[in-house]
Amino acid sequence: MRIRTHDVRFPTSRELDGSDAMNPDPDYSAAYVVVEDDDGVEGHGFTFTIGRGNEVVRAALDALAPMVVNADLSDLGDFYRRLVHDSQIRWLGPEKGVMHLAAAALVNAAWDLSARRAGLPLWEHLSEMSPDQLVDLVDWRYLSDALTPDEARDLLTAAASGRRERIRRIREVGYPAYTTSAGWLGYDDEKVTRLARQAVDDGFRQIKLKVGADLDDDIRRFARAREAVGPGIRIAVDANQRWDVGQAVDWMTALAPYDPWWIEEPTSPDDILGHAAIRRALQPAGIRVATGEHVANRVVFKQLLQADAVDFVQLDACRVAGVNENIAILLLAAKFGKPVCPHAGGVGLCEAVQHLSFFDYVAVSGSLQDRVIEYVDHLHDHFVDPVVVEGGVYRAPTRPGFSTEMRPESLKRYAFPEGEAWS
Amino acid sequence: MRIRTHDVRFPTSRELDGSDAMNPDPDYSAAYVVVEDDDGVEGHGFTFTIGRGNEVVRAALDALAPMVVNADLSDLGDFYRRLVHDSQIRWLGPEKGVMHLAAAALVNAAWDLSARRAGLPLWEHLSEMSPDQLVDLVDWRYLSDALTPDEARDLLTAAASGRRERIRRIREVGYPAYTTSAGWLGYDDEKVTRLARQAVDDGFRQIKLKVGADLDDDIRRFARAREAVGPGIRIAVDANQRWDVGQAVDWMTALAPYDPWWIEEPTSPDDILGHAAIRRALQPAGIRVATGEHVANRVVFKQLLQADAVDFVQLDACRVAGVNENIAILLLAAKFGKPVCPHAGGVGLCEAVQHLSFFDYVAVSGSLQDRVIEYVDHLHDHFVDPVVVEGGVYRAPTRPGFSTEMRPESLKRYAFPEGEAWS
Repeated sequence: MRIRTHDVRFPTSRELDGSDAMNPDPDYSAAYVVVEDDDGVEGHGFTFTIGRGNEVVRAALDALAPMVVNADLSDLGDFYRRLVHDSQIRWLGPEKGVMHLAAAALVNAAWDLSARRAGLPLWEHLSEMSPDQLVDLVDWRYLSDALTPDEARDLLTAAASGRRERIRRIREVGYPAYTTSAGWLGYDDEKVTRLARQAVDDGFRQIKLKVGADLDDDIRRFARAREAVGPGIRIAVDANQRWDVGQAVDWMTALAPYDPWWIEEPTSPDDILGHAAIRRALQPAGIRVATGEHVANRVVFKQLLQADAVDFVQLDACRVAGVNENIAILLLAAKFGKPVCPHAGGVGLCEAVQHLSFFDYVAVSGSLQDRVIEYVDHLHDHFVDPVVVEGGVYRAPTRPGFSTEMRPESLKRYAFPEGEAWS
Repeated sequence: MRIRTHDVRFPTSRELDGSDAMNPDPDYSAAYVVVEDDDGVEGHGFTFTIGRGNEVVRAALDALAPMVVNADLSDLGDFYRRLVHDSQIRWLGPEKGVMHLAAAALVNAAWDLSARRAGLPLWEHLSEMSPDQLVDLVDWRYLSDALTPDEARDLLTAAASGRRERIRRIREVGYPAYTTSAGWLGYDDEKVTRLARQAVDDGFRQIKLKVGADLDDDIRRFARAREAVGPGIRIAVDANQRWDVGQAVDWMTALAPYDPWWIEEPTSPDDILGHAAIRRALQPAGIRVATGEHVANRVVFKQLLQADAVDFVQLDACRVAGVNENIAILLLAAKFGKPVCPHAGGVGLCEAVQHLSFFDYVAVSGSLQDRVIEYVDHLHDHFVDPVVVEGGVYRAPTRPGFSTEMRPESLKRYAFPEGEAWS
C-alpha cells in the first residue's frame, strides 16, 4: 500500500463565508490522504480544519502512515482499533485532537477504498452488512455502561427487516437538509434576509443563523429572518461555543420570542454537565440543545446522552475516528432515542457525512423524524462526486465510494503553501 | 525572541521501566522548546510523551512559534489566552490533544523565563503575586458555573495572610511524596516486594502499584506488597484507563481486602459520569478515586469536581496548558475541597510539577492534608536542577526558574532520531 498526503487550503477568509462568533476568518482546509492498494485501487480521505495548523494534522498523518502501509484492509474494525490504540501514540490524546483527526482521515480513506471495491456508494455498502459485521466495526471499550454489543446487535437486527423498503424510499424522496448558507455572522442584515427567503424558495424547511457576538445584533437579525421566512420554517441558531452556562441561558431566553428550533454549541463541547444545565433551563421555553461537531469521541457522546444533555446529536464525519466511531455514535443515539443531525459544510463534510445519515435511516434508526443534514453551498465543485441537494433534500449518492475524492486540479491549485491560489 | 525546538527521546522501553496495563513499552520523550529573549535570557519548557508522535508535538510547537516570537511576556495571562484561542488553531482541539500539549510547553517555557528574571524559583515567584494578579492569569471562560473570578479572589485573599509562615514551614519540612518506582507492571513479584520495602525504608508513607492486566496477578502482587510494607503504609493502585465502568467496580472489589488507598484512572479520562459511578460504587468499600494525568483541560476537571467523581485531583504540569491552566485547576480543587496530588514521573514532570504543589500549599489550599506528589526515581540526571527527594519528601527548589532545563549534552545525545543514543 502507498500513502500520499496533502495540505489543501481554500482562502475563504477573504469573503467571510463561514464566519461565526468564534471563527471570524476561517480558511477552509483539508489534511488529505490517498491510500493506494497494490493493485492500484485508491481510497481518499481527509479531515477538515480552518487553516493554521493544517500542517500539524498532515504531520500526524505521516506519523500514522507506517501503521497503515502493511495493514489488512479486509477487517476495518481491527484496522481502526489498531490505529487509535497504538500504545505510544495514544498518549497524545487519547482519542482526541490532532491525532484523532488524522485517524479520521485514514479510516475514511480505507472505507472509500472498501466501498469502491464493493462497487457501491458507502451508505449502501454499510447497509449490506449484517448486524454482526456492523457490531464488529465498533470499539466497545468504555461504552458498556450505556450500550453493550448485544444490545446493539438486537437494535440492528430489529431494523434489518425494513432495509430494502427504506433503501427504495430514500432513493425516491432524498434525505432532508437544512442550510447554514444564509446566516454567517459576517453577512449584513440585507444579505441574511435575502438568503433566508431564497432558502425557503429553494425548498428548505429549516435554516440556521450564527449568534453569540452581540445580543442586539442577534435579536435584530433573528427578527428579520423570522419575518422573512414566516412561522412555519424552523430557524436554528448556533453560538459556536461562545458562552458560559449562565450566559447561554440568558442569551437564549432573550431570543426565545423568535422561536429558535435549537441552540447549537452554546458552550464548551467538553462541558457535558453544562449542556445538561442549559437544556434543563431552556426546556420551559421550548428551546432544544444540539452539539457534536467538536465532541472529541464516542465517550463524550455517550455521556451527553446519559446526562440527557442534548436533543440532537451532531456527529461529524471527520472529527471522531471516521466511519467506525460514527457507527458507535449512531448506535448510541438510537439507543437513547435522539435524532442524529450531522454537522457538515466546511470542505467535503457534506459529501462524506450524507453517507452516514442515509445508512442511519436504512439500517439503524429507521426514521427521518426531526432528522436533517446540514448543508452549505460551498466548495462542492472541488469534488469528483459532489453532493446533489435539490428541493431541500440530499439526493442519494450513487457512485461507488465515500464521495471523498477531491479533483486533482484542486489538490494542486490549493496546495499550501506552494499552490497557485496562495502565490 | 528566538525559539528552538527539540525532539528528545529516552529508550526506556528496553528496561520496562514505566510499563503499565495500557503502556507496555514506553520510550519516555519530550517535545522541548527554548524561548530566548532579545537580551539572552532563556526559558525552557517541554511536554512529555511516550515515544511515537513526539515529532507531531514538535511540529505543533513550530506551528505556534510565530505567535510567540513577538509576544509580550510581561503579561502571561494574555500570552496564554492568545495561544489557546487562536481562532484557526483552536479548531484542532479545542484545548486538547497535540496542540494543547504544545501550548503547555510554550507556556511553561515563558514561566521559566519569567521566574529566572525574577531571580526566584517558580513556586516562590507565583507566591509573591497578589490575588488580583493570580486571578488575571486564568482563562475564566467556561468556569463561571463552578467558580467565578470573585470567588477565586476571595479564596486567595483568605490564604494570603499565612503565606510567609507557610513558605518558612515548607522549606523546613518539604512536601510529601509517594513513589511509583516499585510497582511497574513489567516487574516480577520479587522486584516489586523488594522495592516496596525499600520505599518504606527510604521514608515514603505511600507507594503505588500498576494493575489492570490480569486480576490473579494483581491480587498476588498486591497481597505480597501489603505484607511487605504492613498496614500503616498507603498503597494506591493505578489501572491506566484499562476498564469499563462495571469492570472497574468488580476488579477493585476483588482488591478491596488489601486496602487500596485510591484507584487511579479506572476508565477513560473523558468519562466524568463513569468516574462518578465508580466512586459511588466503591465508597462502601472505602476506596477513593483519582484521575487527571490525561484530563484534557480545566473544563473536564471542573465537571469531575461538580459531579463529585474524584477524591484526588491529579493535575499534570504539561498536559493542560501549563502554569496558567493549572492555577485554574488548583483554584477549582480548593473551591470543592479536594486535595491535589499531581501526576509526575516521565521525563521532567517531577521537576516541573513540584513548583505547583509548593505554590498550592503556600497560596491556594494552605494544606498538606492527604496531599502527595508522585515521585519516580528516573531520568532526573538529565536536568540542570533535578528534584531533591529525601526521607519521602520533595525539598523546596531554590534555583531561579521552573527546574525545566535539560542538560545540553542530554538534548544532544537523546535527540531523535539523530542522537547517539538512537544510532
